[in-house]
Amino acid sequence: MLAARHNREAWAGDADRFGVAGAILAGNLCLNWTEELFSTCGLPADHLSRARPVFDRMRTQLMGGQFLDVVESARPWAGLPTQERLERARRVIRFKSAKYTIEHPLLIGASAGGAGADDLTALSRYGLDLGHAFQLRDDLLGVFGDPASTGKPAGDDLREGKRTVLIAHTLAGTDERGRELVETGLGRPDLDEDGVATLREVIVASGAVDAVEAEIAQLADAARLALKSTSGLEAAPVDVLDELIDFSTARSS
Amino acid sequence: MLAARHNREAWAGDADRFGVAGAILAGNLCLNWTEELFSTCGLPADHLSRARPVFDRMRTQLMGGQFLDVVESARPWAGLPTQERLERARRVIRFKSAKYTIEHPLLIGASAGGAGADDLTALSRYGLDLGHAFQLRDDLLGVFGDPASTGKPAGDDLREGKRTVLIAHTLAGTDERGRELVETGLGRPDLDEDGVATLREVIVASGAVDAVEAEIAQLADAARLALKSTSGLEAAPVDVLDELIDFSTARSS
Repeated sequence: MLAARHNREAWAGDADRFGVAGAILAGNLCLNWTEELFSTCGLPADHLSRARPVFDRMRTQLMGGQFLDVVESARPWAGLPTQERLERARRVIRFKSAKYTIEHPLLIGASAGGAGADDLTALSRYGLDLGHAFQLRDDLLGVFGDPASTGKPAGDDLREGKRTVLIAHTLAGTDERGRELVETGLGRPDLDEDGVATLREVIVASGAVDAVEAEIAQLADAARLALKSTSGLEAAPVDVLDELIDFSTARSS
Repeated sequence: MLAARHNREAWAGDADRFGVAGAILAGNLCLNWTEELFSTCGLPADHLSRARPVFDRMRTQLMGGQFLDVVESARPWAGLPTQERLERARRVIRFKSAKYTIEHPLLIGASAGGAGADDLTALSRYGLDLGHAFQLRDDLLGVFGDPASTGKPAGDDLREGKRTVLIAHTLAGTDERGRELVETGLGRPDLDEDGVATLREVIVASGAVDAVEAEIAQLADAARLALKSTSGLEAAPVDVLDELIDFSTARSS
């Protein structure tokens, strides 16, 4: 939008750089506002001050997690053992998705509400496991999801070349021909429907979908166990958190 | 640095985009930390909560001011009357420099310290006037300053093509040949020492330096007057603010 206006009005300098500068500043503005919303949300000052360290940690770690994602999108996977690939993909999930999407928001609320140390630890485990499972489900939907319900074009993650746990399992379980198909097809922005269908077949045949489904089920169980180990929380929020497990990990989007 | 590492290790994707992504995230991290430092600076909670609205306003306005600077660096000056050029340059100074460099930091401290409404208004005027004068001095130093004391290469503002109050006055006061020299030389990254010297001569001969010096003197007087109109502040900080006027507007850097 900004770049287009720059072009239309024939302003000086590079239109794309202009657009990027505006986008960076808009992002900074929103980042400022997250903090302003937090501080002015209306909770009593002592509740806010209990939650603030978690809020600060979340915002700092998110930048690290986002950078980790940028790094892992660029660092080659070629020649790495499967275990190292899985660890890299899982570390991105942990720091970019699980902490930011579930663990920290939950701990912010629980800290503000005065939860005890043991319950905070249990909620942290619940959040990390569920956040991890949620991201694995999202990775499956990014390849196999129905565009009508995901809102994203089918196979978009394949065109973007995302190196997920699913892809690590695929490369480990497929044969020479499958590996070649993945290595040449993954990350091609012009991958057509046939190309997407071929990669899907390779992924399913490798056993990767089953492996990821098994991980999701394990993580969901672990999250439920962590939730059960809490002792000082009221029943109603615990019920909601329990429902959230099914809601976040169910097969349909 | 990041882009160089990306290149050296032959990572996937574009090295410059990688470097930009890292730089944006590093900026976001620092932006987060400004707020964390504010909240954990150790002032009592009621002092902080008095100062927080100013702190929030400062961070929001800074993004607007920075964007204004980006826009004004791109929008052409050709064909505009001098008054419009001066207004554009002054608006950037107000929102990018004066508020952020002096007015808001001063109001944050004064609000935290419990200053009254009249004193806050006076300090706001002091800050805007002094901040404006300081930026005009900085613009002069950016063209005429001694690299040994400014730490910037001589004439750097000319190579960057900054459209300052000084340049608006120059274009208004010079002749056809001078205008041509400014329009062809300003913003040329490869402008050599002779080119810088020529532009300096045009600027001085146009009377622009005298005009800017007069503005600085007026703004410094106005800042001093605003400071004198405060009534509830202690003598020691007022003395420091008075010294700051000379310190920020003196001819040598």
